[in-house]
Amino acid sequence: MKHFTLIGAGPGDPDLISIKGAKALADADVVLYDALVHPDLLNYAKTKAEKIFVGKRAAKHAYSQDEINQLIVKFALEDKHVVRLKGGDPFIFGRGQEELDYASAFDIPTTSILGISSINLPGYYGIPLTKRGINESFWAVTATTSSGKLASDVALAAQSTATVIFFMGLNKLAEIVETYKELGREELPVAIISKGSFEEGQVFFGTIETIVSVNSKNKIPAPAIIVVGEVVAENAEFHARINRELAKVHYQPITYSNGTRY
Amino acid sequence: MKHFTLIGAGPGDPDLISIKGAKALADADVVLYDALVHPDLLNYAKTKAEKIFVGKRAAKHAYSQDEINQLIVKFALEDKHVVRLKGGDPFIFGRGQEELDYASAFDIPTTSILGISSINLPGYYGIPLTKRGINESFWAVTATTSSGKLASDVALAAQSTATVIFFMGLNKLAEIVETYKELGREELPVAIISKGSFEEGQVFFGTIETIVSVNSKNKIPAPAIIVVGEVVAENAEFHARINRELAKVHYQPITYSNGTRY
Repeated sequence: MKHFTLIGAGPGDPDLISIKGAKALADADVVLYDALVHPDLLNYAKTKAEKIFVGKRAAKHAYSQDEINQLIVKFALEDKHVVRLKGGDPFIFGRGQEELDYASAFDIPTTSILGISSINLPGYYGIPLTKRGINESFWAVTATTSSGKLASDVALAAQSTATVIFFMGLNKLAEIVETYKELGREELPVAIISKGSFEEGQVFFGTIETIVSVNSKNKIPAPAIIVVGEVVAENAEFHARINRELAKVHYQPITYSNGTRY
Repeated sequence: MKHFTLIGAGPGDPDLISIKGAKALADADVVLYDALVHPDLLNYAKTKAEKIFVGKRAAKHAYSQDEINQLIVKFALEDKHVVRLKGGDPFIFGRGQEELDYASAFDIPTTSILGISSINLPGYYGIPLTKRGINESFWAVTATTSSGKLASDVALAAQSTATVIFFMGLNKLAEIVETYKELGREELPVAIISKGSFEEGQVFFGTIETIVSVNSKNKIPAPAIIVVGEVVAENAEFHARINRELAKVHYQPITYSNGTRY
């Protein structure tokens, strides 16, 4: 059936996909998936479904956005159900709308299925994005804009009481820190979450003053999000970890009584 | 088994819970659930599991936060697996961390499972939170603070290029609009999303200039989020709807070839 479904796969952990996403995957004839998608998710698709990796690997583009758009249309016009599986949520720094718009222009019916975004990851590592009495808002900024410059909103964000979450910010870390230092906010807690909720995911702690050295000492792997704000210190291990600088905290899954491990 | 699991149920649509959330629910001995949780989700729990509604109904509190904390501890110390099912994501304006901290103080092991937040809802209704070339950030603000005043970050947010999402803002709509008007931003598109992705969910469109009258004409039901920013005009129906003011767009589920309707 001619259809395009855009699915947010969530932030790594394959069990964080929605039930709706898993059901739609099971119906796909073709799955186009990203580098930030857990490989186990492909098991929801039929064996005979065509699975095509269209993500970036190292610095190399496997497919450009234009090529992905064209693949979607090509397969859908062959009367297939094309599923596009993207990490996180497709509408939060995900360019999902561009793919929907492109398919719609060819009269292909479209559906989109939300996913848990990387924006939710602080909660996964014991950092609430908001907590009563501490902050009233959070701000998510892409550090790297299409022009390659630091987003102009960063300076405004640094003045607010908001928890600020920087996407794609690791190689802009020094610039981000500089913006906060100019406002005298050296003591502000910072967390860097690397590799989302994948098995190799981890969180590193520091302050505006120390985080550049924490990053260089640990060679923190991308992709990562940078979380700046007082809520970071709400992590139960923050104060113990901060003094040791090298600050890894893994998510601790538990085994429930039915034997399943989450 | 003595355990406390905090689960984000997602923004209404029961199929938007994560697979991990559904699995943990299936293991629960006791489920404490909110008003913003779809009743179908309780079907994932065992028949013999105790299901207790602890949410608000109308303006009346069923249970205070203190009472909920105490219930969690009481049942867990009876060696039960207590699941707390909250709408959206527990760490995004959800007070989830408070419950985890309280349980931990009694040496109860805890796990938390992320959920799709109301922050993702614009994507559900065809409004990307971010789109290249339009905006570089989004800001989520609770309009109603614990003091009852409009959050001080609102004035900063109104100056930025960020898409701004107001939580619990319907009865603060006039004040929010005033903040934007003082900055001369009357033309900025606004969407109000009512009742999330529940069956009765819908979106209304306007601008800073018109949205107060859209709200009063339609008597928009709470809970609702208010989305302010240029991305709102990316909704394919925005321009057609805006001229008619009364502006409902329902999410259109589709029927896949296996007969399942999403």
